[in-house]
Amino acid sequence: MLKFYRSLLISEFLRRSTMTADITALRDAANRLRISAIEMTAVAKSGHPSSSTSAAEIISVLFFHEMKYEVSAPKAAYSDRFILSKGHACPILYAAWEEAGLLSHEQVLSLRKIDSDIEGHPTPRLNFIDVATGSLGQGLSVAAGMAWVGKYKDKASYRVYALLGDGETAEGSIWEAASFASTYKLDNLVTIVDVNRLGQSQETQLGHNVETYAARFKAFGHNAIIVDGHDVEAIIKAFDTAKITKGVPTTLIMKTFKGAGIDGVENLDNWHGKPVPLEKIDGIKKKLTSLQKGVLPIAAPIKDTPEFDLDLGNIKISPPSYKLGDKVATRAAYGTALAKLGDASPHVIGLDGDTKNSTFSDKLLAKYPERFIECFIAEQNLVGVGIGVGCRGRAIPFCSTFAAFFTRAADQLRMAAISFANVKCVGSHAGISIGEDGPSQMALEDLSLFRSVANSIVLYPTDAVSTERAAELAANIHGIVFIRTGRPALPVIYKNDEIFSIGKAKVVRKSNKDCVVLVGAGVTLYECLKAADELETSGVHACVVDLFSIKPIDQHTLIAEATRCGGKVVTVEDHYQSGGIGEAVSSALSDSPNIRVRSIFVKDIPRSGSPDGLLDLFGISATHIVKAVQNFN
Amino acid sequence: MLKFYRSLLISEFLRRSTMTADITALRDAANRLRISAIEMTAVAKSGHPSSSTSAAEIISVLFFHEMKYEVSAPKAAYSDRFILSKGHACPILYAAWEEAGLLSHEQVLSLRKIDSDIEGHPTPRLNFIDVATGSLGQGLSVAAGMAWVGKYKDKASYRVYALLGDGETAEGSIWEAASFASTYKLDNLVTIVDVNRLGQSQETQLGHNVETYAARFKAFGHNAIIVDGHDVEAIIKAFDTAKITKGVPTTLIMKTFKGAGIDGVENLDNWHGKPVPLEKIDGIKKKLTSLQKGVLPIAAPIKDTPEFDLDLGNIKISPPSYKLGDKVATRAAYGTALAKLGDASPHVIGLDGDTKNSTFSDKLLAKYPERFIECFIAEQNLVGVGIGVGCRGRAIPFCSTFAAFFTRAADQLRMAAISFANVKCVGSHAGISIGEDGPSQMALEDLSLFRSVANSIVLYPTDAVSTERAAELAANIHGIVFIRTGRPALPVIYKNDEIFSIGKAKVVRKSNKDCVVLVGAGVTLYECLKAADELETSGVHACVVDLFSIKPIDQHTLIAEATRCGGKVVTVEDHYQSGGIGEAVSSALSDSPNIRVRSIFVKDIPRSGSPDGLLDLFGISATHIVKAVQNFN
Repeated sequence: MLKFYRSLLISEFLRRSTMTADITALRDAANRLRISAIEMTAVAKSGHPSSSTSAAEIISVLFFHEMKYEVSAPKAAYSDRFILSKGHACPILYAAWEEAGLLSHEQVLSLRKIDSDIEGHPTPRLNFIDVATGSLGQGLSVAAGMAWVGKYKDKASYRVYALLGDGETAEGSIWEAASFASTYKLDNLVTIVDVNRLGQSQETQLGHNVETYAARFKAFGHNAIIVDGHDVEAIIKAFDTAKITKGVPTTLIMKTFKGAGIDGVENLDNWHGKPVPLEKIDGIKKKLTSLQKGVLPIAAPIKDTPEFDLDLGNIKISPPSYKLGDKVATRAAYGTALAKLGDASPHVIGLDGDTKNSTFSDKLLAKYPERFIECFIAEQNLVGVGIGVGCRGRAIPFCSTFAAFFTRAADQLRMAAISFANVKCVGSHAGISIGEDGPSQMALEDLSLFRSVANSIVLYPTDAVSTERAAELAANIHGIVFIRTGRPALPVIYKNDEIFSIGKAKVVRKSNKDCVVLVGAGVTLYECLKAADELETSGVHACVVDLFSIKPIDQHTLIAEATRCGGKVVTVEDHYQSGGIGEAVSSALSDSPNIRVRSIFVKDIPRSGSPDGLLDLFGISATHIVKAVQNFN
Repeated sequence: MLKFYRSLLISEFLRRSTMTADITALRDAANRLRISAIEMTAVAKSGHPSSSTSAAEIISVLFFHEMKYEVSAPKAAYSDRFILSKGHACPILYAAWEEAGLLSHEQVLSLRKIDSDIEGHPTPRLNFIDVATGSLGQGLSVAAGMAWVGKYKDKASYRVYALLGDGETAEGSIWEAASFASTYKLDNLVTIVDVNRLGQSQETQLGHNVETYAARFKAFGHNAIIVDGHDVEAIIKAFDTAKITKGVPTTLIMKTFKGAGIDGVENLDNWHGKPVPLEKIDGIKKKLTSLQKGVLPIAAPIKDTPEFDLDLGNIKISPPSYKLGDKVATRAAYGTALAKLGDASPHVIGLDGDTKNSTFSDKLLAKYPERFIECFIAEQNLVGVGIGVGCRGRAIPFCSTFAAFFTRAADQLRMAAISFANVKCVGSHAGISIGEDGPSQMALEDLSLFRSVANSIVLYPTDAVSTERAAELAANIHGIVFIRTGRPALPVIYKNDEIFSIGKAKVVRKSNKDCVVLVGAGVTLYECLKAADELETSGVHACVVDLFSIKPIDQHTLIAEATRCGGKVVTVEDHYQSGGIGEAVSSALSDSPNIRVRSIFVKDIPRSGSPDGLLDLFGISATHIVKAVQNFN
């Protein structure tokens, strides 16, 4: 009986919602968005009108009926969020913000010009964009990260909407995110798929087979609803259904036509990314513009989101407490640091990809289960959710997995840079020193990967003390930070009060007889120290530098020590040559005449074996360092 | 009526298949595999017995009832293929080859030792492994690539079996591959999911919810069957059903228990990757070993696979036919070269990710549609299928997409190196010179990515002639080759008979008055030439080097020219600093005293704009090169 009344109430709610909407005004608005998108791409002579106009009704309903936000403060913490995962359709998004009054027509007509932030794909240079999109398949993970924060951390009523293209659902990252959203019951997240049938170069895999899209999302735990994506009333009803759907995320499968509303383009192939000739605009305007121009109220947001500052720069962990010589794996020290960061700030969130008992991020989970997100074996989504968690200044996300598996998220990290994201990645099991598991588990390209991310910071702590400080430094700076941790337990070499800084190396061994500089980090620093001991027995004195900050690199210390020691530098790394420490150091010293650099690195594809055996077999042990110094004439 | 007889025939076939199998023998064999897997990991003191034993019955039925192969020639072209996507369970695979007689017990007990190819995760160092696994979620793409070759190129009867873990189905790449397999109706592919419920650090997202696994694979177009994964008869029947299922791939959802057969381990958490103590082995043997030891015949393969040699080294394209000064984009020249390679060898296969009209791989499609695979917007699977297509010497795969989007497949490329794969990747739309589309579409980390792949070759042709030759060079060498192509149409600078080699740069401008070397490639080579012209007007003569082969790098030419020109080198690249041309050159010259390198690169996150405007704004145009030379004292 209760069930009956509930369904009565729901249907009444749905009826009223449609009644209160001015359907005609929303239809007209959709056409105005359409015209603007066509015009701005025509003026720019490039861009995506056809992918824009298929979503005109969806965007019209979203921005002028469904979403609650303030035009004057598009990034307000309490506003509903919109992520355009199909970023190439941004003209329709720019048109919506024009219609809402945030952008002028002149501004949207500056599309794709070098001095305009109205770019070819959206970036957070614009005040209404949270994350850059344009590499397809990434928006849903980010949206899910935002929705997780909304539901579990902010516990606020703002909702998150992600608009996907149909073609991009071929990206596996979409299914990682879809599964995540249902696992975490993100009923504040609405996924919208613009099924316009046509990809860039041909029809998509599923064409207009909306039933299969629905079946896929249903199987992934979503409430999937098929909707006519050009029918304003149907779209409104679908969003209303989403709103009353509890415990599962809703996905709206919108059947649309690419180029909808443009004669000679609509539903035809070969119109991807091609503007309509400028001279056709008048005809299109005539056809699409209605005399009736409705009023388009924008729903006010509910201001129930807590206000706070992340207080970056002031998050202090309790000092490390190790004894010199204690054997502690840096991955274990990272776990300790993460739990301490949890003590220090209520905004630190840990994320992992089912490796938490290896990366030791489970130390945060044990202490603050509500601030830990298990992302399972899906690293693209792990990083994507992390970006979403961090993108609005509402949390400090620390993502961890084996360093090797962050390569899975290389494109997400590339896009994170364009998003000016705040996300920390901590990769364990670096290099051949992991031993028996073999090459598939060994990160030997991770320094290269993270160094190549624009404006990133890359830290490679050697011992437990420096690892704790690396984590603290990462938490306190806005940006993308990678920390590389290792598997083996190795001695603590720094005192607990040692100070570490981004961009600063440590000279850990020095004498006034030094005639060579050995540069290492992590496991190879110990090999450098061993080599220095051995060299000393034959009267050769070596300075040893712990690089610590791989990016930015401490060019000053490197030049100073190299010059002091006669210009000979030997770098040693548990990493391949390309993009690693040797190249970073060589590059930093490339303009210094009379400084020569020789680099030792993992020289071939490794194999299973004992850590020490592998260090020796692949050429990065103390023995090889000694030889390199002896041969350096 | 026909339908009735067909179903009668099918049920009779299924009945007979089960009857002919010696169920007891297969059960006993499963236990022998189990014991061996437990023993080898106990001896190694590391490894994955629990993930192995859940699959004991599956492997027993596969190797001793279902698959057709020759133990004496495990990689024979006509043999059925098996890919262990859950690579960490390799002990059970090694045990199967021991049972089959290929490996001795002594060999399997060398698991994870430095001098043994019985590694912690399988690699093709072993003669029964086609591709390395161990980074989860990658095996199905590779298997699908093999199955595509079997069905459409070889047109042979061998079948492909991929065993997946349940946890790894969280990886989106699995769903990219699943969709691909149904799109291409790969009914010669059987996916097996070992649903043992437990991941590394906790229960998986779906636990033992086998219905949801089945629903997901069904929605992705598979014939999904739920099976008791420890019931030998049920497994046999399921494989038989797969065999008679036409037009769609079959997926068997096997409900199993992690650690099955091991008391105190079976179906319990916290036993991932942990060996059983050696002293328990005798008890386990006693419990699991049956007195009955059946005969285990191995089915003989059908030898209907064509025999041929790829003839690497002898594939010759018709010479380029351009006029000096003709404006041709290198991406367009790549399309031309790919079609010519199609003429030159029937084994060249093109693959693309719905960008074929931008990368120009559609020129091969137009000429040889049967040798082109559209992989849609799913780059992990694009590269994974490419690896599968190439891994058995039966085809030469050329994968193309925007260079930026290969970052999506960074982990697949990392694993490709460990697989000693033969796969060519051609990335278009390199750098900021693409212009208006903006940063999300600009590859600025691709050289770094591909250089960091072990043993890779990276070519960056500047004009149409060198692009055609780069593609020809790539086709003729076994290995991972990346070719970077550009969007803008730029002048042909080489004569059609110019010879290019891997590892060789070209000195394109030289005089005996040169006092600086400018190193560029692609769009920046033209800027170097412009800069050299401008510098000459003020009496400064510059040597210009076209690097062409970024890896291996032509250290010899660089040192020779730098030395000749007084030790000053300026590198210029349409790429970020890290892992790019500047670092590669600096590293190559780091041991040469008196040679100094200054590098110009894209110095910040770019934006939309005109190509020329962007080259200037982000610091890599001729103007900036001139300034760099003028300031180089």
